[in-house]
Amino acid sequence: MNLLKAGGKRIRPAFALLSAKFGKEESNKIIPLAAAFELVHMASLVHDDVIDMSELRRGMPTVRALEGNNFSLHFGDYLFGIALNIVEGYKSQQISSLLAQASVEMCKGEIEQLSKAYELEQGIRDYFYRIKRKTALLIALSCQAGALAARANPQIMETLGRYGHCLGMAFQITDDVLDYIADEETMGKPVGGDLQLGLVNLPVIYVLKYSKPAVQEELRRLLKDRPFVRENVFKAIDLIKTTEAIEYSLSIANLYIEKGLSYLERLPNIQAAQTLRQIAFFIYNRRF
Amino acid sequence: MNLLKAGGKRIRPAFALLSAKFGKEESNKIIPLAAAFELVHMASLVHDDVIDMSELRRGMPTVRALEGNNFSLHFGDYLFGIALNIVEGYKSQQISSLLAQASVEMCKGEIEQLSKAYELEQGIRDYFYRIKRKTALLIALSCQAGALAARANPQIMETLGRYGHCLGMAFQITDDVLDYIADEETMGKPVGGDLQLGLVNLPVIYVLKYSKPAVQEELRRLLKDRPFVRENVFKAIDLIKTTEAIEYSLSIANLYIEKGLSYLERLPNIQAAQTLRQIAFFIYNRRF
Repeated sequence: MNLLKAGGKRIRPAFALLSAKFGKEESNKIIPLAAAFELVHMASLVHDDVIDMSELRRGMPTVRALEGNNFSLHFGDYLFGIALNIVEGYKSQQISSLLAQASVEMCKGEIEQLSKAYELEQGIRDYFYRIKRKTALLIALSCQAGALAARANPQIMETLGRYGHCLGMAFQITDDVLDYIADEETMGKPVGGDLQLGLVNLPVIYVLKYSKPAVQEELRRLLKDRPFVRENVFKAIDLIKTTEAIEYSLSIANLYIEKGLSYLERLPNIQAAQTLRQIAFFIYNRRF
Repeated sequence: MNLLKAGGKRIRPAFALLSAKFGKEESNKIIPLAAAFELVHMASLVHDDVIDMSELRRGMPTVRALEGNNFSLHFGDYLFGIALNIVEGYKSQQISSLLAQASVEMCKGEIEQLSKAYELEQGIRDYFYRIKRKTALLIALSCQAGALAARANPQIMETLGRYGHCLGMAFQITDDVLDYIADEETMGKPVGGDLQLGLVNLPVIYVLKYSKPAVQEELRRLLKDRPFVRENVFKAIDLIKTTEAIEYSLSIANLYIEKGLSYLERLPNIQAAQTLRQIAFFIYNRRF
């Protein structure tokens, strides 16, 4: 399951490149752009380390844990700065504007994540709001900008963006579910690490909305302290696993995958469309 | 076990930063340099995809698998180009020269790896030659350059470089052993993936040098075809596991860790030295 996670590494350049195949320019023109999106992603990971205080991102002591917030903050900013410079080099008002908008939204997502931390009474919409900004936007943007830079037609650009959005949502939901069902060995971070950090993700929201009152009550009891008590987090996860919350969450991820695939059907059936389809199946299949 | 692997992500910036703490400049001056080393690392991963034809680097379809060699080649070059520009910005003859030398050596390592692929009759020195260039050099360089950029004293810079070399060697040996003992789920690539690609690593070399003649003969028989036959690779791994090859390899990694720790003892006992010690223990402990 970590495959999905670790595999996220160069997924954004791949989306930018594959999307560019629907346009008129040579792939090589997309290279700086592809690098830029990878850098934005890296920057956001570095800043996440600052914000969520995760001492165990992918298993190694994080830059923040090593050296405090100051360095991580500036390091992330610097990476983002390189990306910005690269994107500006395309002299495309539209690409620059998309990146600017996405950046603002990504920040809003982070702020929202902070403000909703440890907050049990939130809706599924709150969750979708956050993961869209956390993951889906940048993937959608990689697709759109790749298409734009290659001068693909606007409708194709739009469709690729929607595909990217769906894949990004599915990717993040699956990622969040893995926090409950994968083990530390496999994931590179502790089971329940997200929950421990106060991230109230889809499975918790599901239980508190749809499970039997007794189960809801028990979960609320386990997660009543702030921060959550460590042993209670493990108990909460065991409790969540007795419900349909995991299955439900994965079914939502599936819906996104299917929707993403349906967008691909509207695109010219070139080789790149086939590869984008494979990526969707990959995210779908690597689930367990 | 994948922790070690996936955790490699931002280890180079961390080494550069921590090494800089032994100097006189503020940490923030090191940020671009730290980014540069991460970019060189990324570039080398992208180029590895070109060269070793690995379809499953960290589980996701690689950029190469998606789009052919051309893009990966240029994409890697581009990332390296950004790094080069950043390093040049330091206007330090010594740092630029170290990077230039390391780059040449890294290439030589890749060439050697290609030329020795599927070659069973090679010595332990051949293996060390390769992993030094594949991993240890860039980690050593991150330490040296971090110290240099912060105007640390030359002897400290030298010692940090040696520490980095040892950690890098231990890191890579462990990584290679994991190819035999970890499973696909955990590692993000198939067990024996390296061996399947013809990479003759320390455990194989050990068996062919030190195991009983019957075992040596059996291993040679299993690996007589080029490329290696897939089922035979699995059998070869099972055979290797019956010997002391894994234990031996890990003991060599241990020696490097211990040597690395001994270099740290020569350094001023500042907080950064403590953190570098922790990283060594991390690589040592996360072994199983």
